Amino acid sequence: MLNADKLDFMPKKWYNIVPDLPVPISPPRDRSPDSSSIELLNRVIPKEVLRQEFTSSRYEDIPDEVLEQYVQIGRPTPLIRARNLERHLRFDGRIFFKYEGATATGSHKINTAIPQAFYAAREGIKEITTETGAGQWGTATALAASLNGLRSNVFMVRVSHDQKPLRKTIMNLYGANVFASPSPMTSFGKGILQNNPNHPGSLGIAISEAVQYALDNDFRYLLGSVMNSVITHQSIIGLETKSQLADLGIEPDTMIGCVGGGSNFCGFSYPMIDNKNIEMIASAATEVPKFSKGEFRYDNIDTAGILPQLKMLTLGSDYVPEGIYSGGLRYHGVAPSLSLLIRGGRIETSEVTESASMEAMKIFSRTQGIIPAPESAHAIATVIDYVKNPSNRGKDVVFNLSGHGLMDLSIFGDGKV
Amino acid sequence: MLNADKLDFMPKKWYNIVPDLPVPISPPRDRSPDSSSIELLNRVIPKEVLRQEFTSSRYEDIPDEVLEQYVQIGRPTPLIRARNLERHLRFDGRIFFKYEGATATGSHKINTAIPQAFYAAREGIKEITTETGAGQWGTATALAASLNGLRSNVFMVRVSHDQKPLRKTIMNLYGANVFASPSPMTSFGKGILQNNPNHPGSLGIAISEAVQYALDNDFRYLLGSVMNSVITHQSIIGLETKSQLADLGIEPDTMIGCVGGGSNFCGFSYPMIDNKNIEMIASAATEVPKFSKGEFRYDNIDTAGILPQLKMLTLGSDYVPEGIYSGGLRYHGVAPSLSLLIRGGRIETSEVTESASMEAMKIFSRTQGIIPAPESAHAIATVIDYVKNPSNRGKDVVFNLSGHGLMDLSIFGDGKV
Repeated sequence: MLNADKLDFMPKKWYNIVPDLPVPISPPRDRSPDSSSIELLNRVIPKEVLRQEFTSSRYEDIPDEVLEQYVQIGRPTPLIRARNLERHLRFDGRIFFKYEGATATGSHKINTAIPQAFYAAREGIKEITTETGAGQWGTATALAASLNGLRSNVFMVRVSHDQKPLRKTIMNLYGANVFASPSPMTSFGKGILQNNPNHPGSLGIAISEAVQYALDNDFRYLLGSVMNSVITHQSIIGLETKSQLADLGIEPDTMIGCVGGGSNFCGFSYPMIDNKNIEMIASAATEVPKFSKGEFRYDNIDTAGILPQLKMLTLGSDYVPEGIYSGGLRYHGVAPSLSLLIRGGRIETSEVTESASMEAMKIFSRTQGIIPAPESAHAIATVIDYVKNPSNRGKDVVFNLSGHGLMDLSIFGDGKV
Repeated sequence: MLNADKLDFMPKKWYNIVPDLPVPISPPRDRSPDSSSIELLNRVIPKEVLRQEFTSSRYEDIPDEVLEQYVQIGRPTPLIRARNLERHLRFDGRIFFKYEGATATGSHKINTAIPQAFYAAREGIKEITTETGAGQWGTATALAASLNGLRSNVFMVRVSHDQKPLRKTIMNLYGANVFASPSPMTSFGKGILQNNPNHPGSLGIAISEAVQYALDNDFRYLLGSVMNSVITHQSIIGLETKSQLADLGIEPDTMIGCVGGGSNFCGFSYPMIDNKNIEMIASAATEVPKFSKGEFRYDNIDTAGILPQLKMLTLGSDYVPEGIYSGGLRYHGVAPSLSLLIRGGRIETSEVTESASMEAMKIFSRTQGIIPAPESAHAIATVIDYVKNPSNRGKDVVFNLSGHGLMDLSIFGDGKV
C-alpha cells in the first residue's frame, strides 16, 4: 500500500451514524418562529451536503472524484505504532495513532472540505465562502476549492488575521481571497467598521459575513464541524483505521480523540461503535468544560445565531471560554450525535488542562518526532493518563492525532520550551 | 503497506556508489602539510561513520535499531503521483514524487542523523554536537539524538537563531541545547565575542564551535551532507523509490532532484544509476552557479577550513552567494561522487532562478496541496521546464520532494503571495 493502489485501499462509502443512534437525533430548529435560519441553509449550503445532513441512510457513496482527491492530499493517512512512547511510559500494551497531520493541510479538516467543495462545483457554483479563526478550517477550504476549480473567500477574524500572517500566506498560496473580518466586503462588516474601524472581529461576525457574502453573490458556504454531514465525511478516518487494524489482526481495547465540535473524534470512532468491546473516550479542555458542565438543550450553532439551533451538550453560545491556545477546543457545544452517545454512556469523557496538554506535546515530540497540534495533544494527555492506570496494563489503545502543530509553535512562547 | 509491515518493506542495506563510480574518488586531504584535519575527523566522528566514509563495499547493513527508528519517523515515505500537477501542465506523461517532507522533521536530513546518532550511542558516547544555519539539520540532529538517548548541542548561526525562534523551539522540544553562535561555550566563540559581542555568526564559526565543543568534552560531531557516508545513508530514499516504482511496474524515464551539498539528490538517484535508460537531472540555484561556474579541484568542505579538503566541483569555500532564501542551496560545493558523475556526463544539470522556484512553489501548493521547501521547489521548477519541452511528451518523471516548506513561509513576505 505504498503506491497508486492507495485508491484500491480507500473505503468507497462514508458511514453515517444517524440510523444507529440509541435515540433519534433532534432536528435543527429556528431560534424563534419568525427567524428563517433553516430556510437560509437551503440557500447557502450545497444541495447534496444538505441532503446528507438529513439522511438516515447508513452509508453514502464517496464520488470517484472525491476519492481521487483524498489520495492526492495524502489519504489513506498512516496508522503508526508509537513504540517510543510505549517505552517512555513503560507501558506493556500497545499504543497506535492514526495520523491526520499527514494530509497536505496538516489536519483532518480537509476530509470534509473536499466533498463540500466538490458538491458545490458539481452544482455549477463558481465561488465558496467560509470563516476561520485560527486558520485550520480556512486552509482546508482554500485547498479544497482550488482542487475543484472554485474561487474561495475566507473571512478571517481580524485579530487572528493580524497575529497569524503565515496562515494567511498558506491560504493565499492555495488561491484563496482572505479578508480580515469585519471587512468592507459585506454590509454587515461595513456597519461594524463604521462604528469601530479597529474592531478585532469575532468568529460570530466572520460567520455572518461569510454567509451574507454567499447570499449576496449566489456563492455557497462551507461548514467545518458539528453538522451530521461533516461527521459523515470524517468517517473516512475511522473506516481507514478499522481496515488498518484488521490488517494487523488487532481489535483495540480503547479509542481516544479530542473534541472541539466533535468531527474528528466522531469520524474516528463511529465506524467501530458497533463493537461494544471497544471503550471510547472523548477528550476536551478543562478550561472549556463542555462535558462536565454542559447542559443538553437547544442552542445556537454559532455565537451570532445566524445558523439554526441544535439540541446538544452546550456551555451556551454566549459562553466566553478562557483564552487557551487550542482554538479548536474553545467551541461551546458538542455535536448532537456525540452528545446523545455521551449521555447514553456509550462514550466516556475526559477533560485535560492546558498545561497537561503542553506536557503531552513535549513528550510526544521527543519520543515520536511528530509535533502534535495543541488540540490533538489533549488526546495524547488522555492516553498518558489511561496508560498510567494500572488497570489498563497490556491493553491496545488507538488514538487520533488530528493534526500537527508546526503552525502552533508560538504556544511555547519566545523559543522557550 | 499501511501498517506494522512497514518494517518488512524497508530496504535492509544502504547502497554505496563508491565501487561503481567510473573513476575512483579522490581521498580527502589536509589543507596544508602541518594541519591535522584528517586526524581531527578520527577524534570527533563516530568510528562506524568514519569506516563507512572510506569503505568501497557496495552495500552496508542497516542496523535493526535504525530500521525501527526509520519506521517511527515516517519511513517508508510515500511515492505519490502528481495527477493535479500533470493536468495543470497539460502533460500527457506521468509525474511522481517521493515525499521526504513526510518524515517527522519534515525533510530527508533525519535519514543520516539517525544512524550517526545511533553509532555514536553504540560507542558509549553520551552527547553529540553539530552546527545549523536555517535549522533543518539541527532539527534532524536534535530528534535523532533523543531517539538514541543522547544529549545534543546545536550551534546555531546567531542571525538565524534570532530570526527563526520557532526553529529553536522545535529543537528544544526535541530536547536539544541550542546555542547562538558565536557562543561563550567554546574558547573560539569567546574570543570572537570579546572582539564583537554582537557578532552575527556564520556557518564556518558554528562548525568550528561544534567541533571544538566535541573535542573538549569527548562528544561526537555529526555531519549533514557532502560526505560519502551521508550519501550512503540517504540511499534509503532511492532504494524505497526503486521498490515503489517496481510495485507499479514503472521504469522512469527521468529522475530529478535539487542539490545543496548533494545528499538528497544522490540518495534519491544513485540506487538506480546502473539503469542507463534513466536520465538524471540535478537542479541547483542560478544564484549559486556551482554547475555552470564551479571548478573541479580540492577545496575546503567548510568555510572555516577546519574539516579536510575534498576534490569536487566548487565555487570556492570563500564564495559569498547571493542572499537567496534557499539556505540549503547556498553551499559552495558538490559532493565528490556527484561531481565525478556530472563531469562524466552520466548526470545532467540545471540551474533555476529564485523567482522560478517561487513560482513552482505556488503551482505545486495550489495543485497538490503540499507546500514545498524552497530548496525542493528548484527540483519542481526543473520538472516544469522538462515537461514543457515537446520532446519529453509522454515520459515518466520522478522527482524528490526533499522537504516541506511550512517553516519557510516568510519567503513570501508579510502574508503576500
